[in-house]
Order: sequence, then C-alpha cells, then structure tokens
Amino acid sequence: MTQQTDTDILLTVSSLQKNYSKGSLTPVQVIKTIIAKLKQRGDDGIWTCTLSEETLSERAVALTNMSASQRSQLPLWGIPFSVKDCIDVAGIPTSAACPAFAYNATHTNPVVQKLLDAGAILIGKTNLDQFATGLVGIRTGYIAPHNAFSKDYIPGGSSSGAALSVAHGLVSFAIGTDTGGSGRVPAGFNNIVGLKPTRGLLSTRHTVEACRTLDCLSIFSLTATDAQTVLAVAQGYDPDNPFSRPAGASPASLSSYQTRQPFRFGVPRPNQREFFGNGDIETCYSNAIKILTDLGGVCIEIDFEPFLQANNLLFNGPWVAERYASVGTFVEANPDRVFPTTRKIILNAKNLSASQAFEGIYAMETLKQKIKPLWQEIDCLMVPTTGTVYRIEEVEKEPLALNANLGYYTNFVNLLDLSAIAIPNGFQSNGIPTGITFIAPPYSENYLVGLGSVFHHGSNHQLGATAFKVGS
Amino acid sequence: MTQQTDTDILLTVSSLQKNYSKGSLTPVQVIKTIIAKLKQRGDDGIWTCTLSEETLSERAVALTNMSASQRSQLPLWGIPFSVKDCIDVAGIPTSAACPAFAYNATHTNPVVQKLLDAGAILIGKTNLDQFATGLVGIRTGYIAPHNAFSKDYIPGGSSSGAALSVAHGLVSFAIGTDTGGSGRVPAGFNNIVGLKPTRGLLSTRHTVEACRTLDCLSIFSLTATDAQTVLAVAQGYDPDNPFSRPAGASPASLSSYQTRQPFRFGVPRPNQREFFGNGDIETCYSNAIKILTDLGGVCIEIDFEPFLQANNLLFNGPWVAERYASVGTFVEANPDRVFPTTRKIILNAKNLSASQAFEGIYAMETLKQKIKPLWQEIDCLMVPTTGTVYRIEEVEKEPLALNANLGYYTNFVNLLDLSAIAIPNGFQSNGIPTGITFIAPPYSENYLVGLGSVFHHGSNHQLGATAFKVGS
Repeated sequence: MTQQTDTDILLTVSSLQKNYSKGSLTPVQVIKTIIAKLKQRGDDGIWTCTLSEETLSERAVALTNMSASQRSQLPLWGIPFSVKDCIDVAGIPTSAACPAFAYNATHTNPVVQKLLDAGAILIGKTNLDQFATGLVGIRTGYIAPHNAFSKDYIPGGSSSGAALSVAHGLVSFAIGTDTGGSGRVPAGFNNIVGLKPTRGLLSTRHTVEACRTLDCLSIFSLTATDAQTVLAVAQGYDPDNPFSRPAGASPASLSSYQTRQPFRFGVPRPNQREFFGNGDIETCYSNAIKILTDLGGVCIEIDFEPFLQANNLLFNGPWVAERYASVGTFVEANPDRVFPTTRKIILNAKNLSASQAFEGIYAMETLKQKIKPLWQEIDCLMVPTTGTVYRIEEVEKEPLALNANLGYYTNFVNLLDLSAIAIPNGFQSNGIPTGITFIAPPYSENYLVGLGSVFHHGSNHQLGATAFKVGS
Repeated sequence: MTQQTDTDILLTVSSLQKNYSKGSLTPVQVIKTIIAKLKQRGDDGIWTCTLSEETLSERAVALTNMSASQRSQLPLWGIPFSVKDCIDVAGIPTSAACPAFAYNATHTNPVVQKLLDAGAILIGKTNLDQFATGLVGIRTGYIAPHNAFSKDYIPGGSSSGAALSVAHGLVSFAIGTDTGGSGRVPAGFNNIVGLKPTRGLLSTRHTVEACRTLDCLSIFSLTATDAQTVLAVAQGYDPDNPFSRPAGASPASLSSYQTRQPFRFGVPRPNQREFFGNGDIETCYSNAIKILTDLGGVCIEIDFEPFLQANNLLFNGPWVAERYASVGTFVEANPDRVFPTTRKIILNAKNLSASQAFEGIYAMETLKQKIKPLWQEIDCLMVPTTGTVYRIEEVEKEPLALNANLGYYTNFVNLLDLSAIAIPNGFQSNGIPTGITFIAPPYSENYLVGLGSVFHHGSNHQLGATAFKVGS
C-alpha cells in the first residue's frame, strides 16, 4: 500500500533538520514533494481540507529565503505538519468531521500558533471520528479513510486522518487529540508513534471539545524523539485556558534505558489481558515483553482491575455529558446531519443527572488514589495499544461494542491523569500493524520518549507506511 | 451572657499546657470544671450528645495517671475538645442534626482519631444546621442554639454548636466543617477564631458529606495559635480518602508580621462591599483596615467581582447535587423528618443535569485561573467574616435569602481552593461580635495564623464569651 517512490524524502523531523542544516534540502523542495504526493493520492479521506498549492508554496519560499540567523530562531523551520479538524486555525473552517457543523475559525489554537511561530508548515486539516467521538476513525461526514496498510481495515480513531498523514509520509508530524485513546489507537493501527502528553500540557483552547476536563492534544510522528522535539515547542502554560497546567519536572530521562539500568515495567496479569481472540497481537505483545526484558527491564505483573474500572467509568459514567455540553445543542437541532452512532451517544447523555456526575467524579478520585502506590512498584505500565483490530465492515455492523473493545487499554489513561506513548510493535499476519503503549504518571514525557525510542530502535521495522526503516 | 465564675479555668490550649507543665492543673480538675459547667447550662442546644460523666472522668484519670514520659509523647495531653455531629466517632451516634437520620458510627474520622491518640479529651458531639446545610445554625432537629451573646440572635452555622462550645469555654477547641463558610460564620458571630485549612489537609473520611469535592474539616479555638497547634496534630495525608492532599510548604510565617515588614492585603473596592445596611459592621471593617495598616500592611483595593461570581456558582450552580448524592435518598424517603428548608434545598438538586454539573466545573476552573494572578499583587485578602448578622425571628421569616447574605464573604473560598482564618474584630452596638477573615492561596495556614494572631493581639477583646481577655 505504500505510495513512495525512489525519490521520496524521509520526513522525520530529525532527518529534515539534518538535511536542512547540511543544505542538501530546502523547504521549497519538501513542499513540492508533498504537493505531488497529495495530488497523486487524490481524496483518500485523510484530509478535510489542504491548504492551496499557492499558499503552501508561498510559505515554503518565505522560509527558504530566510537568513541563517532568522532560521536559527525557528526550532521547527520548514517542518510540515497537519492539524486534526476539531482544532481551530484562524481563516480555515473547523468541521469536526461534520460538514453541517463547520464554522470559519477566527482564532488559532495556541499550540498550533506556537508551531507556526516556530517555522512549521501547516499542510491541512485532517479527518476524524465526528466530534472526536470514537476509536474507529470512520465515523465521518466526509469520505471515510482506511488503514494505511489495507483498504479493508479501519484506520483507528478518532484522530484517523492525523495518524494517516504521518504514516503515509505526507507530513513530519500531526497534531491530534486524545480523550479516551484517540491519540494512541490510530498510531497503533498505522505503525507510527503517538504521544499523549500530560493533561493540560498542550493548551486545548479553541478546539471543539469532546470532554473538556479530560481532553488532550496529542502528537503523531514517525519516531519518539520527533514527538519530543515537537512537544518542547508546543507545550506551555496558557493563562486563558483553565485546564492548562505548567510543565513539571520529568521523573527520568533517556539515559537510564540506554545504559541498561534495571527498570520495572508493569503488565496486566495474564488472565486480565484481552485480545478478543486475536492470537497475532497476543504473540506480538509477548514479544514486546521479551524485548523489554532483554533491554534490562524487570517485568512485574500487576492487578489491572482498577484500570478496567476506570474504563467502565469513562464509557458508562457521566463524562459523556461533557460531549453533550460541547455540541449537544447542535446535535439536537440537526439530528439528520450528524453521524447516527455519534448522535445516539451524545443524546443519551441528556438522561444523566448532576448527582450522577459528582458520583462519577468521586469514583474517579477513588481509583486515582487506589493506583497511586502502584507507581512505587513499577516505573511504567506496558500494554498492547489495542487488543485487536477490525475490518471496516465488522465495525459498520456492530459500531458500539467493537469500538468499546478498542479502548480496553486506552480509555482509563486521561481519567487517571496519566501520560502515555504508543510505539509500533510489528505486524500481524494480516499485514496490519500492532502497537504497544507505555503509560506513566503525569509529566513523564521524557521518560516515555526515552523508553519508547529504545524499544522502537530495537526493531528493524518500516517507519509508518513509508519506504524508510527505523534508524534511517 | 457569660456564665463563668471567679474559679473558672481559661481553656486555651496554650494556657492549659502551661499550667499542666507547671503542675498547677490536672486533666481531672479540668474535666471536673467542664462537667460542672455542662450541668449548670443544661440543654442549651450546643450539643447533640455529651459523653457520660463516668466516661469523661475515666479518661481524665487515665491521662492524669500517666508518667511524665508517656505525657511527653502526647502533644494534646488533657486538652478537651468537641466534634461536630456530622463527623463519625465510633460508638457514638452521628445525627447530622436530624434525629431520624442518626446511626451508630462504627468508624472514627481519622482527624478525630489523631486528636484522641494525641491525648485530647472528647467532651461530646455538637449541633449544626442539619446536614451542614446553612450558615444560620438553627436549622436543627434538636433544640436550636442561640448566639453566645444574645438569646435573640442566631449563632451562625452550620457549625453552630462547635463555635459555641469554644466561645462558652466548654472545650479548648472544636472540630467543625466548612463547605461554604460553616467554619467561619459562627466563629465571627461568637467572637472566636475559625481556621478553614486547605481543602484535603484534614481528612473528611467518615463524615456525613455536604459537598464531597469541597468539604473541609475546620478548627474553632479562642486564639489563632491554638488552631495552629491543633492543625499540626490533625493534618496528614489519608491514603483512604481520595480528596486528601499531603501538607504543602507554607509560603510565609509569623515573623514577617511581628517584624512589621510591609505586606499587602487586598480589600474589595468600596462599591463591592456589602453590609446589608449594617453600619456597625461597616465601621468595624474600616477599623480593621486601619489596624492592619498601622501594623505595616499596605491596603490594596481589588476587584471582588470574580469572587462574587464564584459565590453565585456555589449557590446557584450544580454543587447542591453533591448534597443530594450524600443524603438525597434519605430525604426522599423521610420528607417529614427533615428540616423543611433543608429538604427544599436538597430535593431541588434533582433537577440538575450532568452537563450542567460539568458546565459548573468549567466555570469554577475559569474563575480559579482568573484570580491566580491576583496573588502576585496581594499576600492575602481581608474581608468581613459576614456583612451583617440576623435575629432568629428574621431568619425564620426569610430563611433562604438571609442565609445567602451571610455567605457573601465566605461562599467562594473552597470553590476557589483557598485557605482562610476568621478572627474576632470587636462588637456591634447590639452586643453581637463581628469578625474579619483573612484569605490566601492553599497551604497558607502558617501565614494566616501569624497574621491573624498579630491582628487579634492588637485588640483588648474578650476571648469568646469567657471572662478572659486576649493575652490572658
């Protein structure tokens, strides 16, 4: 399924920066290649809109013509990226994958603004599960995208277009969102990295909110260190976003893995692991445990039950009322213009009472406190990113139950205020990638990137769906 | 109204400890005096129950008989205290001032346990506004208490009995609760100190909750430093209470006030102050500003509007649904056995939706973020504890509106995650005390005690309703 040719350019941030600094490549050349690829692909469901050839070229020329001293001020000079279409960019419509909902954004989300100010080049806005509700990636009012490795399989969501834009080498990184797994599931299904930073580290101001108290912006990239480079630019306290949090001290760094010091990773007890009958992913997960053990890690089986209880709380608890608070008025006024499954989920939230909302919050805080001592026993948790993957036609037949299955290892993370990174972990026999996810307390981004990077480099995998391999 | 005689004992913690260490007093003597006073007073509405004379005497004897080395292990050896009757003490009924609701507690709240373990002597459980709902102190299924200085005036609530037990010199300190002002309003009305520590510093486990996300345990005492002594024993992270928080670093100490270093205290702009026609309290508040300025403080007028918005959010927002979550089932099943005003408030909460609950949380977080920069301009806020006081008959005629008026300077504090201390500030011409309250960011307890203590010592007031004066 890869569309790359011999003349393709590896778009990792690190590779572009190396070639830019050597002078062997310019933003103009990169943008020209990307435009050609976009044309060749046509409307593949990845984008809700791309910037015009003229706009992209002008931006590339302006950057290319900058003096060396100007360039040195811009940490993402000439790096192409995409933005999930529930995040505002002034002057471009925000649709949240619902064409009838689209409005012309008058503000730019602060994270996107920081990236633009750092010299990054916005290529376009990406498709998603409507209103960021879903983990399948195909609940959209636009053309539905498919998995980067198969027309028959779902791409994962809700940040489907974001992950695909990276996997297909159309951008260096993508800004997505993650409430219950939207920044990790599509990374896993498309063989790329998905960093879900600490809640509040990336400002969610000027976005179409899913669950305002839980939403995170997330970063998709081909490598873990690329995500770290982007995070360093994108993070920062936003005094106008009440859920913003200042950056905290990171508990550990890359070096402890590189020097093979013993570290402890938790895994669910075997009887608490769930692969929904998918033996391939089960095998891939066992391999991952072996790889990590070979890297010097100590595998510790933990009780996954509190995490499953948190999943249940997110799925059956009151947080869906936040989706109603965000777009409920629109959905009620325009029922026929909303994706049927999405409409059903959001309107169901009307029946929940305020006392149920507070009871949910009590249950959440109880679970948070319950898992706190666990972080004295383990440095991180390692889980499969998903237990299985589905064909598009399977999901269409049974949209709610199969979607819930995909959140088994992701739903709890934001509710419990954790940080996470999804890393590629090889392929199933059906050709679809699998992933693992490392999870740790808040402010563990550097730790997670370090561990994820070492794990990723231990493989000889393809980068996304590109012609390049890890270590290229 | 004071009942003390020439042979009365000053029950401040500091005075008792001084006399205990000199050997001029024993717990047996103290308890004997207290028992005599309780008998003399009869049922005055302060208590829902007191421990039997036998139990009290046994405890006093056991403490008195301890060796010097045993005593030195007990920081509150022989100090008498009371517990608000919405807090569990194993073996004693918890009624929350609703006789039909009463249950025999099987656990002891961890704060009470720490105090008992430190050698303090529990005298009894105190009356309150039923289910800790109200600031008047007379909404009870038991005999309603009245102000310590007048039979015609309300004592303030919801911790009415707690404040009165201290004001009348029946205990050294009282454990109350504070959600919207219950730990400060009755301190102000009865001429004592009310410390409302940082949310989560005192474990609220095993209490009848009002609003679980906001509730605090609070400390009533005759002096600010007494409250600090009690806090030092009572605080501590509770691994079984999800809203518990570990103690944080205190931003300042007593010394900065004692050395008259300049400090900045905020006051509402004159047009934002509200005294509900009470000229006496207005004058007392102006005096307090003068006293603080004379102490070296710089008075800074601030915009009180965000605090008033927070008041409105607590009063008209979704948090009342927490009261429903706590006792709603009982209230619905026993409507006739609940105080009518209380029933009305709690059952109204049924109409609130989960999305309204989350919208309230968004509004709260927005206000929190809005006031954050204020703490760069001022070290603390100084407000009247209440703008006015009411007669019992006035409150009975107009229970909801007058109650709301009493929260003008208190409601916002827990919602905005602040700490506070109420300090006596002289008397009105009707003989009823007035108070001021210092408010600061969380973990400011030492700072507040220091400032409050200096302010209190600047006066020559009576201590509570006792025969003793500040500095005795």
